[in-house]
Amino acid sequence: MTAQLNQATELSRRDSLREPVPLSERTGVSYGAASNGVNIQAVPGLPDIKPGDDLVALIMGAMAESEMSFDDGDILVIAHKVVSKSEGRIVRLADVEPSDEALELAETVTKDPRKIETILSESKRIVRAVKRPGQDEGILIAEHRLGFICANAAVDESNVDLPGHVILLPENPDASAQALCKRLEQMSGKQLGVVITDTFGRPWRMGLVNVAIGLANVPGKVDLAGENDAYGRELKVTIPALADELAAASGLLMSKEGKKPALIFKGVEWSPACSSALDLIRPQQEDLFR
Amino acid sequence: MTAQLNQATELSRRDSLREPVPLSERTGVSYGAASNGVNIQAVPGLPDIKPGDDLVALIMGAMAESEMSFDDGDILVIAHKVVSKSEGRIVRLADVEPSDEALELAETVTKDPRKIETILSESKRIVRAVKRPGQDEGILIAEHRLGFICANAAVDESNVDLPGHVILLPENPDASAQALCKRLEQMSGKQLGVVITDTFGRPWRMGLVNVAIGLANVPGKVDLAGENDAYGRELKVTIPALADELAAASGLLMSKEGKKPALIFKGVEWSPACSSALDLIRPQQEDLFR
Repeated sequence: MTAQLNQATELSRRDSLREPVPLSERTGVSYGAASNGVNIQAVPGLPDIKPGDDLVALIMGAMAESEMSFDDGDILVIAHKVVSKSEGRIVRLADVEPSDEALELAETVTKDPRKIETILSESKRIVRAVKRPGQDEGILIAEHRLGFICANAAVDESNVDLPGHVILLPENPDASAQALCKRLEQMSGKQLGVVITDTFGRPWRMGLVNVAIGLANVPGKVDLAGENDAYGRELKVTIPALADELAAASGLLMSKEGKKPALIFKGVEWSPACSSALDLIRPQQEDLFR
Repeated sequence: MTAQLNQATELSRRDSLREPVPLSERTGVSYGAASNGVNIQAVPGLPDIKPGDDLVALIMGAMAESEMSFDDGDILVIAHKVVSKSEGRIVRLADVEPSDEALELAETVTKDPRKIETILSESKRIVRAVKRPGQDEGILIAEHRLGFICANAAVDESNVDLPGHVILLPENPDASAQALCKRLEQMSGKQLGVVITDTFGRPWRMGLVNVAIGLANVPGKVDLAGENDAYGRELKVTIPALADELAAASGLLMSKEGKKPALIFKGVEWSPACSSALDLIRPQQEDLFR
């Protein structure tokens, strides 16, 4: 037992010394180019995440227990909820003092003014405030401070395990993804990518899909030719939103109860890039659909 | 060789006698419930599809050659382009007589009036006509006759193998999916699902993703509780757009050159339903984002 522990400590000490291959040295590297198949595996047995938890250690531990391991080019797709929780991005509603604006909006949409205050604090602007007949609570469609257009500025109210609390997006989801990725690369010795997701509604289409809100190494979209004139060129050459494809695919396994928040994708064709999930936000003036 | 051929003919004769298990008898059936992983495989070696081609025979043949086979609960996700081609949904632009409306729009957006006429013939209404500075051709955002909001009413102009032609969506993509599914089930003896996809742009977000435009057995969205008040309930209980998750995931393997238009998904958790891709179109009055 002691010998095993020593071995584990030794491994983790050695692992912690590994420096990931810098992105600049991976130029032209491509993973999964000849891939005919993609495999998505849930990391099983992750515990409920609490503020301060070491998410990377928990993921590596759970993977080791299930005899899962990383290969070069693997991508971790992870629900923001567990990242946010580990970072303590949790607000106790009882501690929130609603502003006059929040109190006013609360009457318009029938919604807890402390929730609205929290949403306002995470928003650049409210796009639309909607009261729904026969429903307890209205919805605020907001532009999140990072630019995402989504319901309630991505403030997550559905926390069965934390009554009276709401969960925010990470302060800087790209930075969170990059920190996760760097440590996963150090511990595994493999070159990886990370996508942090949230679940958004969509204009025009019913049902929710996961989208990418934080990225490390994985490009938001695959931009085949050089410059970008947004929608026109997208159509002409087909610019896939790779990170959103990964995020949406993750919805196939992330269970409703949130018990499978971390998935490993193997066999995806991609090339590392200095990326940001903010690249996926369409500038208003280029949005032909609005 | 002859013996092999005879055996193949015998197999296909026997297969053609199998009747799929009717959907009504599959009530409560659930696939992949204990699934911890999803596997996506491209059907390799499909030839270019031409009008009148037997897509099911070609898929089953290509799968057999690669020693791939169907299991109960597998889902075929297939690009509409090959389905449309097999159904002859191809328009030779030289045969199109542009209307006055098309000629007028052509001046507004700088676009071939015969393409515009074809787009108009596939549309309920033009949502927006956009000329893009420095680009050869403008874009029409249209409501397709089936209700999809997309560029150019999903009329596909990017056909390297068919210059001077454009490809339309299938006449009835759900019916196409159901016909494909029924014959695949007959030939394989397995219970399957089919999703036909197209590649759409999105409001708010950059890059293109595949979406579901035709369904057989696979529910468009997973509706956990009974009745539907659209967006509010979606958020409350999280109603995943399962068919769009599958479609978006297919983009991870469908190559830009269109050489992998057919993918098999294994391990997805789903329950067969009498479904339509039109269930994924959000009614305008319920769309909080517009």
